[in-house]
Amino acid sequence: MIGINENFLKLRAGYLFPEIGRRVRTFKQEHPSAKVISMGIGDVTQPLAPAVIEAMHRAVDEMGRQETFRGYDDSGGGYEFLRQAIVENDFGARGVSIDLDEVFVSDGTKSDTGNMQEIFGIENVIGVADPVYPVYVDTNVMAGRTGQIGKEGQFAGIVYMPATAENGFVPEPPGRSVDMIYLCFPNNPTGAVATKAALAKWVEYARVQKAVIFFDAAYEAYIKDPAIPHSIYEVPGAKEVAIEFRSCSKTAGFTGVRCAYAVVPKQLNAYTKDGRAVEVNPIWRRRHTTKFNGVSYVTQAGAAATYSSQGKQQVQQTIDLYMANASLIRDTLTKLGYVVYGGISAPYIWVRTPKGLGSWEFFDLLLHKANVVCTPGAGFGPAGEGYVRLTAFGLPQSVREALDRFARL
Amino acid sequence: MIGINENFLKLRAGYLFPEIGRRVRTFKQEHPSAKVISMGIGDVTQPLAPAVIEAMHRAVDEMGRQETFRGYDDSGGGYEFLRQAIVENDFGARGVSIDLDEVFVSDGTKSDTGNMQEIFGIENVIGVADPVYPVYVDTNVMAGRTGQIGKEGQFAGIVYMPATAENGFVPEPPGRSVDMIYLCFPNNPTGAVATKAALAKWVEYARVQKAVIFFDAAYEAYIKDPAIPHSIYEVPGAKEVAIEFRSCSKTAGFTGVRCAYAVVPKQLNAYTKDGRAVEVNPIWRRRHTTKFNGVSYVTQAGAAATYSSQGKQQVQQTIDLYMANASLIRDTLTKLGYVVYGGISAPYIWVRTPKGLGSWEFFDLLLHKANVVCTPGAGFGPAGEGYVRLTAFGLPQSVREALDRFARL
Repeated sequence: MIGINENFLKLRAGYLFPEIGRRVRTFKQEHPSAKVISMGIGDVTQPLAPAVIEAMHRAVDEMGRQETFRGYDDSGGGYEFLRQAIVENDFGARGVSIDLDEVFVSDGTKSDTGNMQEIFGIENVIGVADPVYPVYVDTNVMAGRTGQIGKEGQFAGIVYMPATAENGFVPEPPGRSVDMIYLCFPNNPTGAVATKAALAKWVEYARVQKAVIFFDAAYEAYIKDPAIPHSIYEVPGAKEVAIEFRSCSKTAGFTGVRCAYAVVPKQLNAYTKDGRAVEVNPIWRRRHTTKFNGVSYVTQAGAAATYSSQGKQQVQQTIDLYMANASLIRDTLTKLGYVVYGGISAPYIWVRTPKGLGSWEFFDLLLHKANVVCTPGAGFGPAGEGYVRLTAFGLPQSVREALDRFARL
Repeated sequence: MIGINENFLKLRAGYLFPEIGRRVRTFKQEHPSAKVISMGIGDVTQPLAPAVIEAMHRAVDEMGRQETFRGYDDSGGGYEFLRQAIVENDFGARGVSIDLDEVFVSDGTKSDTGNMQEIFGIENVIGVADPVYPVYVDTNVMAGRTGQIGKEGQFAGIVYMPATAENGFVPEPPGRSVDMIYLCFPNNPTGAVATKAALAKWVEYARVQKAVIFFDAAYEAYIKDPAIPHSIYEVPGAKEVAIEFRSCSKTAGFTGVRCAYAVVPKQLNAYTKDGRAVEVNPIWRRRHTTKFNGVSYVTQAGAAATYSSQGKQQVQQTIDLYMANASLIRDTLTKLGYVVYGGISAPYIWVRTPKGLGSWEFFDLLLHKANVVCTPGAGFGPAGEGYVRLTAFGLPQSVREALDRFARL
């Protein structure tokens, strides 16, 4: 008799964003004339950069001719032209040396952060910030690394590290032993960034504990402050303890194109139960080549174009546009009396709900009274209760309109 | 201390195709002037159909304009325009009724067959044919459903069902209980097809045992015999016990574009340890939307074009070209005295090695003496020893040249 993986039954009914989508669809059906503006799901609105479009057209043409057609990308980690551009621009330019075979191109950081845990033992204790991007938690629940969910929405067996206004939304390493640590900076959902000193504490902790850090840097392109590291590998010794995740989704508007990568350094070890060190890089390669068949050539060609001088400039213009939105949201809401965080080196603004409203209460209020969609902070964990997340990815005119509605609320 | 998933250490060093790639690269380095022809890895050589190219260009243009840009595909299973084309053309046209929300678009059948096992319990006993596509086995080894590998290359805990010349390479259901059954027809690697009667026995077995069948139909487009079912759902009752996998890779030359889908029927149940039935479809949806973020819009637009009347015709022309290769390979090798199977309703030809040579021995002989790359049957399991797999995906002139070299061998 076929058994189900009962760990899936521990999950709450809906993943956060489908639940938001459901509430918005219901509202729209009931109010067909309402002009709903989404500041909720972290999806981009600007088109792909012209350099990317051009590269993708060229790649499509190549796929239509015998002589230039490309089948499987059997490199095991993405075309070399893309990995070369990655190591030079994302790391070399910041003084970090990453080898080509430490880079694994994929279809998304959601996939990568969800899949990476598979290569580690089921008995590892995971540590996550609270609030947290739900994928880190849910994929570990599915794998069986947790117990049941509690009343507060937290799973037994996970070490939650509160990210609060008091600690600037950057938790310190915990007083106890944790084996797999998920860090995301610039942070989703709070918009907080981590200084080099803060990351160095985590690297030191991981080195002492022989832990591994999953460093999600999907939003690094939004960092404005030159003192803030873009990669955890800017911290000495991090290559021995950290896996880093990067994505074209928010950097270059690839949410509908799908391209990302993970860096798995060759210095990183994990351990057998009898204490033997095992290199993680070849284990991930085995997983990646066995359960995944690479990213579309057309997509990889488009991703590589974001590293051309034209591509970089065009991508930066879009980021600047989003960050102008972020500034406007911050400034306007502050003037209106809201307490806001983030939005300076991150596309997310973390807003305290007014009058002690719950996150979902404020979500429903905003949706029904202002026809604006936000993301309830409680959806990211109990410490997110009393906050909502706004994103800067909207069209400028929509953002202005949404802020006018906030003013009228 | 971070523990490794020790199940990965049970795997043999190399996944089959990287190992072939390694040997071929070494040979080429040592013999730079040799003109190596690959009949080994199952990659296609013909360019994408003009209708697909046109659709992809159109989609790329849409991604470059604000008004038509598409971000996340938040449908949870692929754009409706593609799923609609799938249910009408791949199923409706054959009298099979599949609902839109039973179709999950993905980046490949390798991913789907590798990931689908996750939603089932770790204690399930899996059954695979021998020889078998290695991904089915390796992904279950990674998940911990097996013991160690034995001398014969088989893992403890897996039920292997020999597919031999004696049973026409279509194994019967085993005499014992198996929970997760992997079937692939038209078969990779043997090129065998299953009649409706043969599949009906498996459906009956699964219904009695409350087992689930993973039916890999990636090669269904190559079926010539009108009596052979293209979908397991052509067998009554199969929707209660089977998940089906389809791919554009071999149907439409998408190996470098990446688009596939899985059908997870709503009638399909799995069971908790205390015997409660759980619907599998919403569990897979939860997994799919939590650990995957959808397929590129450009890719989905291209895939949908394979269902247009022009697209269908163009795709069929390419399949006909490959199947002309298959016929030529079959006929020539038969004339040369080889014993060959498959290649009639499948793009794979399963060739008995001459003079009792081992698979890898014949692989090395072919590579060194004829500069032709095949796939050693032993790489697919012990019952594949003494066979090699040839594919019909080559350029016609290369296939002719390779067959001339066989003649001179």
